[in-house]
Amino acid sequence: MSTLPKIAWIGLGIMGSPMSENLLKAGYQVTGYTLEQEKLDRLARAGGTAAASLADAVRDADVVITMVPASPQVEAIAYGPDGILENAKEGALLIDMSSITPRTSVDLAKAAAAKGIRVLDAPVSGGEAGAVEAVLSIMVGGEQADFDSALPIFQALGKTIVLCGPHGSGQTVKAANQLIVAVNIQACAEAVVFLEKSGVDLKAALDVLNGGLAGSTVLTRKKDNFLQRDFAPGFRIDLHHKDMGIVTDAARAVGAALPVGAVVAQLVASLRAQGDGGLDHSALLRAVERLSGQQV
Amino acid sequence: MSTLPKIAWIGLGIMGSPMSENLLKAGYQVTGYTLEQEKLDRLARAGGTAAASLADAVRDADVVITMVPASPQVEAIAYGPDGILENAKEGALLIDMSSITPRTSVDLAKAAAAKGIRVLDAPVSGGEAGAVEAVLSIMVGGEQADFDSALPIFQALGKTIVLCGPHGSGQTVKAANQLIVAVNIQACAEAVVFLEKSGVDLKAALDVLNGGLAGSTVLTRKKDNFLQRDFAPGFRIDLHHKDMGIVTDAARAVGAALPVGAVVAQLVASLRAQGDGGLDHSALLRAVERLSGQQV
Repeated sequence: MSTLPKIAWIGLGIMGSPMSENLLKAGYQVTGYTLEQEKLDRLARAGGTAAASLADAVRDADVVITMVPASPQVEAIAYGPDGILENAKEGALLIDMSSITPRTSVDLAKAAAAKGIRVLDAPVSGGEAGAVEAVLSIMVGGEQADFDSALPIFQALGKTIVLCGPHGSGQTVKAANQLIVAVNIQACAEAVVFLEKSGVDLKAALDVLNGGLAGSTVLTRKKDNFLQRDFAPGFRIDLHHKDMGIVTDAARAVGAALPVGAVVAQLVASLRAQGDGGLDHSALLRAVERLSGQQV
Repeated sequence: MSTLPKIAWIGLGIMGSPMSENLLKAGYQVTGYTLEQEKLDRLARAGGTAAASLADAVRDADVVITMVPASPQVEAIAYGPDGILENAKEGALLIDMSSITPRTSVDLAKAAAAKGIRVLDAPVSGGEAGAVEAVLSIMVGGEQADFDSALPIFQALGKTIVLCGPHGSGQTVKAANQLIVAVNIQACAEAVVFLEKSGVDLKAALDVLNGGLAGSTVLTRKKDNFLQRDFAPGFRIDLHHKDMGIVTDAARAVGAALPVGAVVAQLVASLRAQGDGGLDHSALLRAVERLSGQQV
């Protein structure tokens, strides 16, 4: 007889499916809900239970985990008569692992507290591969006691697990992550175009650059994308566009200036407007190439 | 009796002094010249020879190495009746390790060729510590044969030594290095202000960020500068201002757009204008703090 908490998992997409399966492997009972039958079937085959409705999924759960695309989806599943707050039991812990605006996380925590439901925001980085291999970085906002009680669950999903501060802090750190990643890609993109137009051996140059103070994880992981103009995702411009919206909104809310982040947000938006939303975010190189008169 | 080439070293500043001493340690004869007697005395104490003039220093040299602050100084010592090109012997190799505009390096190589003098541009990164410990990164532009003949000298000065392309390519890669470093610092600075204003535990946040795709050598080496507002140089804003001028000029010359590099160049210039030119370049954090209404 298991003493592990019963888990409801809402949202079984590219990230949610492998993550929920990692909980099954760790011995948890997982009841899942999403709108696609095929994803529910996959969960059932992996040993989970497919619920017929959101309310059914969460009713008996000790822990409800949500992993959906953006703030509107989190609000849609949290609120209303059929939502999580109305149907989860008092004392349940709601862990939202979606990447959304910090403000939405703070509001959700307040609304949930009124129902006796505790909340953690816990967005991740590491992508599909990190989800499958259970090596995600998990950035958490909320109360220490709730973090402590959720830690065994997080440890079945990721490797670097950090409580960053009060409600919304996980989302804030995730937003900062996306800001730095986009700007660092842009730095490389500008350097690549400058180096190539100057007639330099690009591969030799990127190797020596990555060995010094200009080195970065972006340069290490995206070097081949730059060299080969291979922009198969990876992490899509469409998603980074969403995230640049989150970080610029969140920064505006707290009065933090992002003079460079704002420019990069525009370049990401411009790529999307030109039909490149499905490409990997290293395709910021294309934006710089176009600005530099190259036909791409 | 030594068969090593005789070396003239011009410019014995923070970088030039320890670098020339590393050549003495490696067994080279080094004759030095600079404008400060105390630096000449230091070279003599280390086993080198102090020349009374630039012409005297270079007259018998097989290899002339220059390490001076910027393009005007390189032009001042290279050209004119008392300069290197007029006084070095035919067949000598001139290695300019200063960080200057690629255009100046290309022009110098042409003018030198007319005198039978070969040239390499070979700027470095790694700072004073890298110079002292002989672990500099050396980015070289010029002919393969000249690179090959200079390699033993470079190996006495640095660790990562790369021929990046034709004349000027070393300067181009160094310029790209300074571009990426400044932009990556700016990315961190914007993230830090955003995180702090959002009430996040900054140290925890920077640790988790550095472990993922947002990680960089800048974040690793400058994290404590950000956390403690410690802006003791390090690499001074004044010097990075010079370098942002080089990269924006060089990019303009080849038609490469630097939409983000140009903004960061402005922020560096603004710090300098506000009297912060003597601070470490991590002080870009101050620029973002001021833009965000903080009194610093």
